[in-house]
Amino acid sequence: MSAIPTTPASPEVPVWSVDPRTGERREQVAAEAGPQTVDAAVLSAHDARGALTDRSVRSAFLRTAAESLEEAREELVAVSDAETALGATRLTGELARTCYQLRAFADAVDEGAFLDVIISHPDATATPPIPDLRRYKVPLGVVAVYSASNFPFAFSVAGGDTASALAAGCPVVVKAHPDHPATSEATVAVLRRAADRHGIPAGVVGLVHGFDAGVALVEHPLVAAAGFTGSVRGGRALFDAAAARPVPIPFHGELGSLNPVLVTGPAAAERAEEIGAGLAASMTMGVGQFCVKPGLVLAPADASGDELVKALAQSLADVAPGVMLDHRMRDNFVAGLAERAELPDVEAPVSPGATDAHTVGAGVLTVPAHKLADGAGGAHDLLLEECFGPVTVVVRYEDQAQADAVLDRLPGNLTATLHVSAEEAATGSAADLLARLTPLAGRVLVNSWPTGVAVAPAQQHGGPYPATTSTSTSVGLTAAERWLRPVAYQNTPEALLPPELRDDNPLGLPRVVDGRREG
Amino acid sequence: MSAIPTTPASPEVPVWSVDPRTGERREQVAAEAGPQTVDAAVLSAHDARGALTDRSVRSAFLRTAAESLEEAREELVAVSDAETALGATRLTGELARTCYQLRAFADAVDEGAFLDVIISHPDATATPPIPDLRRYKVPLGVVAVYSASNFPFAFSVAGGDTASALAAGCPVVVKAHPDHPATSEATVAVLRRAADRHGIPAGVVGLVHGFDAGVALVEHPLVAAAGFTGSVRGGRALFDAAAARPVPIPFHGELGSLNPVLVTGPAAAERAEEIGAGLAASMTMGVGQFCVKPGLVLAPADASGDELVKALAQSLADVAPGVMLDHRMRDNFVAGLAERAELPDVEAPVSPGATDAHTVGAGVLTVPAHKLADGAGGAHDLLLEECFGPVTVVVRYEDQAQADAVLDRLPGNLTATLHVSAEEAATGSAADLLARLTPLAGRVLVNSWPTGVAVAPAQQHGGPYPATTSTSTSVGLTAAERWLRPVAYQNTPEALLPPELRDDNPLGLPRVVDGRREG
Repeated sequence: MSAIPTTPASPEVPVWSVDPRTGERREQVAAEAGPQTVDAAVLSAHDARGALTDRSVRSAFLRTAAESLEEAREELVAVSDAETALGATRLTGELARTCYQLRAFADAVDEGAFLDVIISHPDATATPPIPDLRRYKVPLGVVAVYSASNFPFAFSVAGGDTASALAAGCPVVVKAHPDHPATSEATVAVLRRAADRHGIPAGVVGLVHGFDAGVALVEHPLVAAAGFTGSVRGGRALFDAAAARPVPIPFHGELGSLNPVLVTGPAAAERAEEIGAGLAASMTMGVGQFCVKPGLVLAPADASGDELVKALAQSLADVAPGVMLDHRMRDNFVAGLAERAELPDVEAPVSPGATDAHTVGAGVLTVPAHKLADGAGGAHDLLLEECFGPVTVVVRYEDQAQADAVLDRLPGNLTATLHVSAEEAATGSAADLLARLTPLAGRVLVNSWPTGVAVAPAQQHGGPYPATTSTSTSVGLTAAERWLRPVAYQNTPEALLPPELRDDNPLGLPRVVDGRREG
Repeated sequence: MSAIPTTPASPEVPVWSVDPRTGERREQVAAEAGPQTVDAAVLSAHDARGALTDRSVRSAFLRTAAESLEEAREELVAVSDAETALGATRLTGELARTCYQLRAFADAVDEGAFLDVIISHPDATATPPIPDLRRYKVPLGVVAVYSASNFPFAFSVAGGDTASALAAGCPVVVKAHPDHPATSEATVAVLRRAADRHGIPAGVVGLVHGFDAGVALVEHPLVAAAGFTGSVRGGRALFDAAAARPVPIPFHGELGSLNPVLVTGPAAAERAEEIGAGLAASMTMGVGQFCVKPGLVLAPADASGDELVKALAQSLADVAPGVMLDHRMRDNFVAGLAERAELPDVEAPVSPGATDAHTVGAGVLTVPAHKLADGAGGAHDLLLEECFGPVTVVVRYEDQAQADAVLDRLPGNLTATLHVSAEEAATGSAADLLARLTPLAGRVLVNSWPTGVAVAPAQQHGGPYPATTSTSTSVGLTAAERWLRPVAYQNTPEALLPPELRDDNPLGLPRVVDGRREG
């Protein structure tokens, strides 16, 4: 472990790296950051803004960061596995994704479309007349990034929030997740070496540990925006703090999601086994600790639905017990299951829960739809809350009206999935169902599974609250929009204009000029 | 007055139209909306969503609305002048602008670029592999619009928030401003007749009166977003309410702005008289009741700066007293002036304030820059707050360091203006000053005045808090972005896809396909 501690070790509140496979402390990684340490990190980040002004420096830095992370792969994966138990295969893949993401943002920085250059030349015929107006987007300033427990690379120190913020020209200060402090330190050290190679101060990516540090961060006057991936409780508290500041700031938080799946009768009749097996694979990926885990499945209350549940149960029986990210999550999972399992008419064809002192087994709960469809306030409403871990709730519906009634009761989601038959897909007869699911989520899938979030221009990883606290995405190239604000220059002489806005377009940017798209 | 009351008149809390020229009540227009009336308006709007799905219906409705408002011009201008005292010329111009804006949004709806269609075809070489992903933007739902006092047409019932929300496919419920309830009723009647001509239910534009109704509106579960133009106090209270909801919603508020102006030494030396006269015209437009009124002007503390102040004072002496929008505003203006004028070292070359029981005269206050530059906490900080009405504060600075120190203390603004000499403009030597002003505002002007906000694609009417509570604009075609959220469809069969996202592009939309821009 060659991580460079970024906060002075203090005997008062040590930060430990813990092995979730044993619950034992591995080593003290750092100390929790007090207010002065947070302030210093934010000031250093603020001072590093200028170093990101040049887009070519920014993109080169992002590419070097990707390359350097790849070079450090062996160490990073080992450290991360030791404190998350996610396994070398998964973590190697996640690191590759993280590097791909950094490079994709580097390409986006070079292209410059995200600057949204719009030029309106003077037009005396408009009401009122239009003067010379030139608009583009500028970085907001220091971005606070709150790491996720479940993605130590892709949604943490070098993850999507950081990559998109740096791409936008914003330095970041990351609040490390307590489940992987050593990985966080190792990652930030790599990023800082990469920054140094491009003459960018190390402060461009700050790192702080500790709950109080996270609160201090979102309240710091020089923090201009925040990105968060985590729980509804933690995320909402930080959202509230961001909104309550004397100067409120945008808080882009991804909090929680049930990710409902609707299986039609014809779909179940056509391929109950395939759907059951697919569901088992999706809901147990990463020990059920994915934000897009399908957590609630509407399946018909008929024989083909029975077959689906049977196939799901069979597949789950083959899934080996897994280690969750930490013991607190494990305890929450076990307690949450117990509370759900004892609800009237809830059955457990495969009982999920603790298998030994450290591992948990995957399972499934079933419930008749009328328990959820009959309005709010009942004990069964608990089933409409996310249960983080390898469990899904299959809701058996009698008819479409009952399925609709359950859908009506769902909170916002990252994803919603529709499983239809080949005929329903080909004839378009299921288009109404797709329209039914669209208001529920930011990403709507057909005949596939929501786990696995591609880094692509058309990606949308964000949905109605509590899935996300804003209308933005945290994955995909439009994620950079979150850290920018538009500025328009009026009647500004060519010699004073930023090069991005000059008529001769010296930087070759795509832009819209007098309503016409160029480049 | 042929306004159709939309809320049942109730003797309990009548809503009066008042003549600000006399302070007398003109007529009872409606009654304040209770919780049930607000609920009914929101439900009607919610039910009207489907009628806005077809973009061609939407754009036709917006054009008919513009046409109908023009047809009703004489009546609308008369009603509005009677309760705002803004004068027929100004109001006729404002109505024309409002109609232009509706048509500009209609054109944008037809073009469809705001749908932001992005298609990513499957790519197995990506990490992780990219499935078929197709993203566009869908309407958020019912939008609450809070009318502004100072623009009874352009920022009220048929103003920019309403036009952009309807363009985005969102019905609206407007909270009328108490300064022009009759204008609000007359306007909504015209919009509803226009809606009817396109088969759109009247509820597509709701109207409610009363402070409590405004609070109930932002708290209504079916309200999905809000647009606001008004005071810092009122706007912040509603922003806080929007953020505190169980499901928080986006609140796009334009609250307050000083709109600083920096006049360089060479600019003052070159054209002190022209700048003084231009400033007088800009700051007294609409009796100083513009959100972009230049409220704080940094001028050199030398002879040319003296000349500028003299020219300003001379021009102001020629400005006739004006009637403010209501007597509460007038009282606030007079009280605010008195408090400012009695600060040590503040002088009033032309004393603004009450001229008779109903009118106010324009004026200017001056203060040495060191009173503001020397850090926070002093009584002079009051000069850094907006004073709504025909007054500006000229801050006399000794050197650039002193001017910078004052700029550092400013809150966020809608606009910031730079006046430079011809040489500074031509050689680009003032580029640093432009960069200095950019962080302060959403629109930066050179050698012109901020009043007059063009409706143009490149417009940005929104700046750092408290100018705006989000990074959005409320004027210009990108204003529609506020009322949309992205949705991505994954692996969705062609027959189930919305036509906007089909490969063959049946609607001929501009889009980005696999990174290439089309159309």
